Amino acid sequence: MTEKTLPTPLRGIVVPMVTPLKGRDTIDAPGLERLIEHILAGGVQALFILGTTGEAPSLSYQLRRELIERACAQVDRRVPVFVGITDTSFVESVNVAHKAKEAGAMAVVLAPPYYFFAEQPELLEYLEHLVSELPLPLFLYNMPLNTKIILKPETVLAASNIEGIIGLKDSSANMIYFHQLQMLFKDKPDFTLLIGSEELLGEAVLSGGHGGVCGGANLAPRLYVLLYEAAVAKDLIAVEALHKKVMKICSTIYSVGRYKSSYLKGLKCALSCIGLCSDFLAEPFHRFRKEERDLVCRYVQELGLLKNKTGSDNQDS
Amino acid sequence: MTEKTLPTPLRGIVVPMVTPLKGRDTIDAPGLERLIEHILAGGVQALFILGTTGEAPSLSYQLRRELIERACAQVDRRVPVFVGITDTSFVESVNVAHKAKEAGAMAVVLAPPYYFFAEQPELLEYLEHLVSELPLPLFLYNMPLNTKIILKPETVLAASNIEGIIGLKDSSANMIYFHQLQMLFKDKPDFTLLIGSEELLGEAVLSGGHGGVCGGANLAPRLYVLLYEAAVAKDLIAVEALHKKVMKICSTIYSVGRYKSSYLKGLKCALSCIGLCSDFLAEPFHRFRKEERDLVCRYVQELGLLKNKTGSDNQDS
Amino acid sequence: MTEKTLPTPLRGIVVPMVTPLKGRDTIDAPGLERLIEHILAGGVQALFILGTTGEAPSLSYQLRRELIERACAQVDRRVPVFVGITDTSFVESVNVAHKAKEAGAMAVVLAPPYYFFAEQPELLEYLEHLVSELPLPLFLYNMPLNTKIILKPETVLAASNIEGIIGLKDSSANMIYFHQLQMLFKDKPDFTLLIGSEELLGEAVLSGGHGGVCGGANLAPRLYVLLYEAAVAKDLIAVEALHKKVMKICSTIYSVGRYKSSYLKGLKCALSCIGLCSDFLAEPFHRFRKEERDLVCRYVQELGLLKNKTGSDNQDS
Amino acid sequence: MTEKTLPTPLRGIVVPMVTPLKGRDTIDAPGLERLIEHILAGGVQALFILGTTGEAPSLSYQLRRELIERACAQVDRRVPVFVGITDTSFVESVNVAHKAKEAGAMAVVLAPPYYFFAEQPELLEYLEHLVSELPLPLFLYNMPLNTKIILKPETVLAASNIEGIIGLKDSSANMIYFHQLQMLFKDKPDFTLLIGSEELLGEAVLSGGHGGVCGGANLAPRLYVLLYEAAVAKDLIAVEALHKKVMKICSTIYSVGRYKSSYLKGLKCALSCIGLCSDFLAEPFHRFRKEERDLVCRYVQELGLLKNKTGSDNQDS
Repeated sequence: MTEKTLPTPLRGIVVPMVTPLKGRDTIDAPGLERLIEHILAGGVQALFILGTTGEAPSLSYQLRRELIERACAQVDRRVPVFVGITDTSFVESVNVAHKAKEAGAMAVVLAPPYYFFAEQPELLEYLEHLVSELPLPLFLYNMPLNTKIILKPETVLAASNIEGIIGLKDSSANMIYFHQLQMLFKDKPDFTLLIGSEELLGEAVLSGGHGGVCGGANLAPRLYVLLYEAAVAKDLIAVEALHKKVMKICSTIYSVGRYKSSYLKGLKCALSCIGLCSDFLAEPFHRFRKEERDLVCRYVQELGLLKNKTGSDNQDS
Repeated sequence: MTEKTLPTPLRGIVVPMVTPLKGRDTIDAPGLERLIEHILAGGVQALFILGTTGEAPSLSYQLRRELIERACAQVDRRVPVFVGITDTSFVESVNVAHKAKEAGAMAVVLAPPYYFFAEQPELLEYLEHLVSELPLPLFLYNMPLNTKIILKPETVLAASNIEGIIGLKDSSANMIYFHQLQMLFKDKPDFTLLIGSEELLGEAVLSGGHGGVCGGANLAPRLYVLLYEAAVAKDLIAVEALHKKVMKICSTIYSVGRYKSSYLKGLKCALSCIGLCSDFLAEPFHRFRKEERDLVCRYVQELGLLKNKTGSDNQDS
Repeated sequence: MTEKTLPTPLRGIVVPMVTPLKGRDTIDAPGLERLIEHILAGGVQALFILGTTGEAPSLSYQLRRELIERACAQVDRRVPVFVGITDTSFVESVNVAHKAKEAGAMAVVLAPPYYFFAEQPELLEYLEHLVSELPLPLFLYNMPLNTKIILKPETVLAASNIEGIIGLKDSSANMIYFHQLQMLFKDKPDFTLLIGSEELLGEAVLSGGHGGVCGGANLAPRLYVLLYEAAVAKDLIAVEALHKKVMKICSTIYSVGRYKSSYLKGLKCALSCIGLCSDFLAEPFHRFRKEERDLVCRYVQELGLLKNKTGSDNQDS
Repeated sequence: MTEKTLPTPLRGIVVPMVTPLKGRDTIDAPGLERLIEHILAGGVQALFILGTTGEAPSLSYQLRRELIERACAQVDRRVPVFVGITDTSFVESVNVAHKAKEAGAMAVVLAPPYYFFAEQPELLEYLEHLVSELPLPLFLYNMPLNTKIILKPETVLAASNIEGIIGLKDSSANMIYFHQLQMLFKDKPDFTLLIGSEELLGEAVLSGGHGGVCGGANLAPRLYVLLYEAAVAKDLIAVEALHKKVMKICSTIYSVGRYKSSYLKGLKCALSCIGLCSDFLAEPFHRFRKEERDLVCRYVQELGLLKNKTGSDNQDS
């Protein structure tokens, strides 16, 4: 990728990358390299680091900066890199954005500040102030489960008039919300609308959404790319078959253990089962113990997710 | 105050200090000095910086460090200083704690990480790991409205067995929860139980609670100290009269404007009305505009909160 | 319709009928007749009375019984009639079910009791006891917004083993939940899965759902039948066009006024604008005042929903 | 009690009576008689039937009418009887109120309709309409956990201007809310303010509240009367000792089992352990099985709640 600007809208699969860790404040550097190569081999459109799946809020700023450098260097402009700058502190968001720009990232991603509850007009004013300080274009990120705050459709529409805000990732798991956005943005086709729930990727793209930000694409990037492509091609039979594989990942790998953290724990554990990177989690979470790990590894095998020689998942075979 | 250790339990009024700001990343240094002197003149037991009222999550780490230094220097051990280290990142919590120790603070205060939802056993493991890295004793902080997570009474009891955890501030506004804690801790009288809702200070202390962490004590420290003392003395007539003054502050100064941010905005605005410090708020919030400000200043006057010459509020008169 | 049994699964559009009221405890009988004829002219699959859209919980039992009689008589077995029996009282649910059977209805529909919060095992035991007392087959109804209780996918699967429970209407607006059900029921193709959110009808049917229970079909039954049929035929272009019309109804007619009751008020108002029935609402709600009514009537006109001579909506033209 | 009117405000302990059941639709008549005598022997101020503790929403209307008759007859005007008329149906609320009047009850109690979510202005209009149809004075009932709706303090104040609304029972467990009401009603001392959470009875009365509606008073009426009287007398030592007994009941008898229904199940079970009435619960709940029952009976014994010969609990001894 040599061009300097992002397509508008951006289309395809964006991968919210897991952050491979060796310890509480140490990157698993070889794991990171392997993971990036595995993901890029799947044909994805962009790499999104320091999002929710990347456990960004749990990492030190030192580690976040190191990750930005390493990831951008490893990707080396083969695909655009997006960097999460969601923060409760305006100044730290701006700091991370500058670091991202410097390292060669092409956009930043931001959910609302998540300690204090800001109302929609407060949010809009905050966004106006923030974007004027950012060196890179911004994707909004609707993530009410973690932030407590919904970016209301009308707020997104108003925000889209701020120069520099180019799209939205919706992880609300609320398809009605996504359809409301699609309706509101029918006359602004350049504004990127991405779905964050992989269970909804098929219908989001079939109904005109531009793509998805899918955590499972850390594990099986090709699967999500194929599902995206089948939806673009309106090949309903392929969409259904691939959607079922995604649902199977969700109901197995992400559903081990009893806690809400099972998605993160299961995903990192599965990546470790296939030998890509460590399953160490940032506090307040901790990796699965043996019993759960054995179950995840069994699921990985049953789902045919063991890495083959080409570094890609087995979705083509 | 020359002794090196905190009383167990700690009793009295702890003031969750507002952070005076001149701009987005600049402390209002003269305002900070005036505010600290105003608060200490009220006879409070401890100063708690970088809590919710201090807008800590919204501040840069650079500013947080500067505030710790300035506040500790200004207080100069006249009362203990407590420092909030609540963070989504374990490592940053530890970093701030070390800075606090170095500057002369005597304890740290921590609510659960507030981006990811951790379940009670996950929280307990996190606390065990964290406390072993901390150079200062820790007060837990129950703040479900902002963190989404309740520290369940049994979790608090289990956590109290971790060496270094010495008390809890409860800002749940749930008096049944506080009574449950009192019952659970009846055989651990050294564990400090403080109430965070100023509307509940009277009954919390009457029923055996050790004190309160009251935002209004930025404005009228003497009022809260007198209410605390009346409750300790079981002087119900004084308790009722002082409690009514507190309720009046809550229903006026904290209730201007339509948003959930009215508490922070109203409190900082009132401090500005009486000439103590700037009303600049950290993003995502912004100070009241003229209309609301005029109303707050009028309330301040009607409530007799204008600073007198002695630097204290007028509660004694 | 002369057969005595329902198809398994039931496929198509089920209409959750509005209850036309002349006063607080009086049916608008001529309005009811016109409404039923209007709906049936649209080619729908079944009529569902006494659901949420029918304001059932707000009606007296006397009026509910009268409605059952009148509606069944008017329909006269041209389509199956389903009757809502959701109640906080087990005995009253059974009473209404017997009345429904007697009047000729073919199934009953039930959401969990909605005053006390029952946990999933309690719900399952309740369902076992209830179904054994019912004279008609039962559709479950997932409606967490109103009942506070989610029928978890595993609970639905367990309940499907109770003889007499034949399907589920999901009004959670959570498409992931619906996909989870589809996955769980892949080996039980006779269990009917209907979507309750009209904004999700297209994708629910495209992904294998059996149909929808769409409030808008009171107003424009043909529109929803055509959308259903397009989805069955996998005609994506028609699905998109019809889905957009549905979204338009939602963003206009259902979105007048500031309250959560705008759906009910808007729908009844629109039915009144086109001369079908009264817009009187049961307490605690009240019909729109002139300003909102004028707006709704304007939307009805703009959307081409004015009734034509054939008694059907204008979707075919 | 021969006078025809209620004191304003009403002061003391009101008992939200459990409904003794022999089966799903049958009153345990001898149990009901024993229970009423047990409660009245405790010196309580009023009996409140068909509230939340009375499982009213789960009972058939036929059974509710029978209960009203039997309870009023048994009480025979020794204390006022209040009847819950909370309903999703306006007409059924009015019907039950007329039955209550006819049987000799002196007031009715009403929480907001709890299926549809009504906003505050809608609620106020509903109350205006409803009260004009009621033959008895009305206590409002704030019960957000079950109804999803808070009666905001300003709404209560506005409602208090409706002729016939004479007080409020607050079961929100939110003491700040109760204090807000006390402040708002300081110039309307005739409006009765009762606390519904027994854990908060002491402080509610100490701070000027008029009394409590305490479920535990089914079991130990004298305990709650003594706590009320100690608070009125400002005897803080007695308040503390009696409050601790109440907290002990809450943490044992109401806390067996893992579900939110443990309060109801535990209370009815305890009444059965002491031989007062059956522990049969209305659907969707079911009585404790042997293991939990044995635990509750042990708690009853340890707490000294076994009925003595005088029919009262043992609080005096």
